[in-house]
Amino acid sequence: MELKSATALAHPNIAFIKYWGNRDEQLRLPQSGSISMNLASLHTETTVRFSDDLERDTVVVNSQLLVGDPLARVTGFLDRVRSLAGKQIHADVVSSSNFPIGAGIASSASAFAALALAGSAALGLSLNESELSRLARTGSGSASRSIPGGYCEWARGESDLDSFSVSILPQDGWDLSDLIVLLSHSHKKVGSTAGHSSANTSPYQPARIQDAARRLDICRKAILERDFSALAEISEEDSTLMHAVMMTQQPPLFYWEPRSLAIIKAVKEWRASGLPCFATLDAGPNVHVICPTEARDDVYANIHVLVPDSQILVSGVGGPAHLINPTTVEH
Amino acid sequence: MELKSATALAHPNIAFIKYWGNRDEQLRLPQSGSISMNLASLHTETTVRFSDDLERDTVVVNSQLLVGDPLARVTGFLDRVRSLAGKQIHADVVSSSNFPIGAGIASSASAFAALALAGSAALGLSLNESELSRLARTGSGSASRSIPGGYCEWARGESDLDSFSVSILPQDGWDLSDLIVLLSHSHKKVGSTAGHSSANTSPYQPARIQDAARRLDICRKAILERDFSALAEISEEDSTLMHAVMMTQQPPLFYWEPRSLAIIKAVKEWRASGLPCFATLDAGPNVHVICPTEARDDVYANIHVLVPDSQILVSGVGGPAHLINPTTVEH
Repeated sequence: MELKSATALAHPNIAFIKYWGNRDEQLRLPQSGSISMNLASLHTETTVRFSDDLERDTVVVNSQLLVGDPLARVTGFLDRVRSLAGKQIHADVVSSSNFPIGAGIASSASAFAALALAGSAALGLSLNESELSRLARTGSGSASRSIPGGYCEWARGESDLDSFSVSILPQDGWDLSDLIVLLSHSHKKVGSTAGHSSANTSPYQPARIQDAARRLDICRKAILERDFSALAEISEEDSTLMHAVMMTQQPPLFYWEPRSLAIIKAVKEWRASGLPCFATLDAGPNVHVICPTEARDDVYANIHVLVPDSQILVSGVGGPAHLINPTTVEH
Repeated sequence: MELKSATALAHPNIAFIKYWGNRDEQLRLPQSGSISMNLASLHTETTVRFSDDLERDTVVVNSQLLVGDPLARVTGFLDRVRSLAGKQIHADVVSSSNFPIGAGIASSASAFAALALAGSAALGLSLNESELSRLARTGSGSASRSIPGGYCEWARGESDLDSFSVSILPQDGWDLSDLIVLLSHSHKKVGSTAGHSSANTSPYQPARIQDAARRLDICRKAILERDFSALAEISEEDSTLMHAVMMTQQPPLFYWEPRSLAIIKAVKEWRASGLPCFATLDAGPNVHVICPTEARDDVYANIHVLVPDSQILVSGVGGPAHLINPTTVEH
């Protein structure tokens, strides 16, 4: 009997320049590049155990056994890992996150990054960072950005071979914080995968993609120069551009809730009054308010006054996905 | 001494296919056509009195004397009327509206429609409907749609000569109501005129304009066939397309307030549950909820539960701009 297992931890990320829309749905090759920051205090920890004893894959996420489409998505991903290793062997996967799933905190990013690393390590593959990022990408696009550490850019690339993420600034390169205002813990009506596949039904998606290189250049430069004001302006612009596409897709996706909009508008006013902060939203109602860590307490206090009933998660910049006590036991 | 005066009444209108962006700012030639419905219970009444005794134009709007840019906009418009009549003579203008100005109910539409009619009549011009609509357009684009009655389409046209509005269905042709939820009485930070002139700074405006003929065709057909469901879908799509452009302009214009979004989202759910209604917003936070008049009381009740503190104006379909007791007194 052969037993191989590994445990990996990965952080979710918040995108400043967003990923929305694929040119290849299977390989999750994006229509444009994107840039994000890993979130230190949030993580997914995943253990993958391959064994000849298993007759099928089983996947437990936050103590719940996956069935149906969510299970099929993970087994399809495991097929990819098995194919890389040239092995036919089933797996038990146990994964848990310390933050609410399915509410726009990109749980799939940390989940598939951790799964890519744990799964490949358990089968004895020694993938380098770009190979891991490419693999994670095929499970969830934004997972490719949760493999390297700190501030990451995911290249559009020409093919599967060169569409992966690299760190453009390490996690200790710029001390920013993300205050995540939780406005909903509930699962989204329309998940990101379905939303991506209808991005092109918005008449605005082509213009958004055509303009992406400009936004990426501005954002990358802002990060490398630690220019918060420039990062704030381009990130808010990019977030609005993505949500404008979502709201004009068929069917329309209105991820913004009234309180999301209240925070978006308030943050613009706070910044105009001199408090460094900006708001950005992924595919969900929760608002990420980004600020230099030295302004964190002031920004937190402002948010708390505005939405006193909402939970606020606080995070600094996170590192790369990594293995925890990697083990391979042969019997 | 010569004294010529006339009084005219005009209704504002709510656009189903919106006007946003000019190709000629001076003549207010739009980048695309638009379609609207006049609002019967709202109106502006304007008296224009030309007299050789006057040394300058004076304009009183809702008991307030205009100065500065707002005054210059009206005197510039009066110059156009004077030029048409070949006369050099100043005017007293007194105008009042029975609804809040500057909060997105297109007060400038009814104001310049009434001014075009009263001003031209007072100087003895007998302009036909299309001439009046063209003249009103030069004061405020959407004013061109407040000259004819009922449901009106304003043609993009090739030039000043053919960019005017015509009624596509008379006011008694379809019994719809508009429930206007007043979320703000305050003046807009950025007025429509400034907003129009920066529409092209949004990367999405070209796509919006390119797609306009399709939306106009669907909307016109829905009105002619009294197909409420089709009108609802295309109108909500068009409103979102316009606000997406506004939010992605430089500077961004976020006319939606949190409660606007709450109503937008609730109305989609009500319609999905079988209550015929749809939401559309002009350049302001107030939400226009349109419904067949037989559904008006149910829709009103729903809105009242959702935003109990907000005033709701109710209107049916309005007629054309018209003169009231037209008089020309010669001394």
